Amino acid sequence: MILTVTLNTALDITYRVPQLRPHTTHRVTDVAERPGGKGLNVARVLAVLGHDTVVTGFAGGVTGAVLRERLAALAGSGSAAGTGTEPPRGRITDALVPIAGTTRRTIGVVDDSTGDTTQLNEPGPIVTTPEWSAFLTGYARLLREASAVALCGSLPPGVPVGTYAQLIREAHAAGVPTLLDTSGEPLRRGIAARPHLVKPNAAELAGLTGATDPLRAARDARRRGARAVAASLGADGMLAVTSQGTWRARTPLRLSGNPTGAGDSAVAGLLSGLVEEVPWPDRLARAVALSAAAVRAPVAGEFDRADYDELLGRVEVTEHPAAA
Amino acid sequence: MILTVTLNTALDITYRVPQLRPHTTHRVTDVAERPGGKGLNVARVLAVLGHDTVVTGFAGGVTGAVLRERLAALAGSGSAAGTGTEPPRGRITDALVPIAGTTRRTIGVVDDSTGDTTQLNEPGPIVTTPEWSAFLTGYARLLREASAVALCGSLPPGVPVGTYAQLIREAHAAGVPTLLDTSGEPLRRGIAARPHLVKPNAAELAGLTGATDPLRAARDARRRGARAVAASLGADGMLAVTSQGTWRARTPLRLSGNPTGAGDSAVAGLLSGLVEEVPWPDRLARAVALSAAAVRAPVAGEFDRADYDELLGRVEVTEHPAAA
Repeated sequence: MILTVTLNTALDITYRVPQLRPHTTHRVTDVAERPGGKGLNVARVLAVLGHDTVVTGFAGGVTGAVLRERLAALAGSGSAAGTGTEPPRGRITDALVPIAGTTRRTIGVVDDSTGDTTQLNEPGPIVTTPEWSAFLTGYARLLREASAVALCGSLPPGVPVGTYAQLIREAHAAGVPTLLDTSGEPLRRGIAARPHLVKPNAAELAGLTGATDPLRAARDARRRGARAVAASLGADGMLAVTSQGTWRARTPLRLSGNPTGAGDSAVAGLLSGLVEEVPWPDRLARAVALSAAAVRAPVAGEFDRADYDELLGRVEVTEHPAAA
Repeated sequence: MILTVTLNTALDITYRVPQLRPHTTHRVTDVAERPGGKGLNVARVLAVLGHDTVVTGFAGGVTGAVLRERLAALAGSGSAAGTGTEPPRGRITDALVPIAGTTRRTIGVVDDSTGDTTQLNEPGPIVTTPEWSAFLTGYARLLREASAVALCGSLPPGVPVGTYAQLIREAHAAGVPTLLDTSGEPLRRGIAARPHLVKPNAAELAGLTGATDPLRAARDARRRGARAVAASLGADGMLAVTSQGTWRARTPLRLSGNPTGAGDSAVAGLLSGLVEEVPWPDRLARAVALSAAAVRAPVAGEFDRADYDELLGRVEVTEHPAAA
């Protein structure tokens, strides 16, 4: 199974309003709730790709209970395989650690007049020392069964900034490859522990190294410790700088839609390629096609399998002339 | 006791953000949750004024459970009377009817750069026929103990538009005076059942009768059935048109702050005056002083008792020359 770690899970709530006008009152026309946080989003995409996933991290309070309930519903739909035309889905197993604090909510307000989203993210709950110890014990146990681990998203208050570096070192000791998808100081510290792959976006990559040219910044990130860098560059697709070569991948289509969840879909594509040991150009193609399918999907973070299959055939991967 | 009816209760959530910028992502710096819906807000103010209140209406699902928990905390603080300097508080008793649907949330996003609030109100849950019957049974029972009943706010989906008229007629039959605070068609239909008092704001009053002059519109509302009209006119205070006379009340102070909850505070002032049988000018003075104290309070819907006492002494009430 693939293990995803989401220390700052969230109940993602989406509101639709006819038009968002600050400092006025709006009747919300539609409310949707789903379990959120990057690692949970990654698991959902991996399930569609047929991979079993275990999700860990923290959940607590009323919103944590709702999150786990919704996750159980997803997990249940996983074991019931497709209708015959659909490929079988992977299972999602809940290994979240209960906490006394309350899981945060995120509110995405979709303005129907423009299609744009305004995001309001609550701060995460404080994680206590005994809760953190319980997580570490579970993590060590889960690593024994994992074919790869993805460490995803921001750190909640109370969790040390060097946490991802610690979790990467434990995965190394267990012989499990690691993917790190975070930003700021947790990314900087995590990279120093030599993860197998980091997936920054252009801003995160530039913030890490100071270099605005993605190729230069990605090479710099490798020098700092990342064994491979796959950077998501929005409409410009992805850039991968690895020990085996440097590639760019993009879809020739002009995409419009909701980019929420596109990065998490890319992580799922990269992870599936990693555990299936497919060549780098194919991993990138999956990541770019999944991102594009996520952007096109009407619901943030969802995607259509047939859309993905079609997009996969249209991704262009080119090896960089300056590749090693 | 005073009975307040809130058919469309809500869990009121307040977010603070440094600055609200549509179509961007915000970290919420502060989250506050409280039981909401007009009748619950009215009960909270009545408790500070020393009146016991029973709140009824509907609550369900996860947010309904949180709402009831928070209401119980309020009710608990009510029985523990003041510290010696504070006057004793009234009790708040929860007589909400459980429903299968989920109580709505409202999100108020306070922009710290301007102090303005952007409001996002979820639609209410559907109320089933058996749930509605359970409410009516409880309502009839509660009326037997009530000295007055306030019917507050919008109607949730599934509740007939003529509902307030029905509840007013039942209160008449039980000999209990009624205050109606709603808008649109439920207000129009409710007025026809001859409530003792309606408390529209200027927009609701204009919407009811088409007349934009508040005095003319209030007289028109009386002709349609309301025995008395107390209209809240924002910074212009209140206008009361009753069988005993016509008065205007206002505070000479220029108030700035959050007007959320000012209308509910006015309802509490009018209700307390009604059950204590104080003269109309004193009822209006209470309503205007409570509204002003609510506007001044840092937290929406809260107010400072000392601030209220001071404001009460500064309200100017004038009898209208054209009074009957």
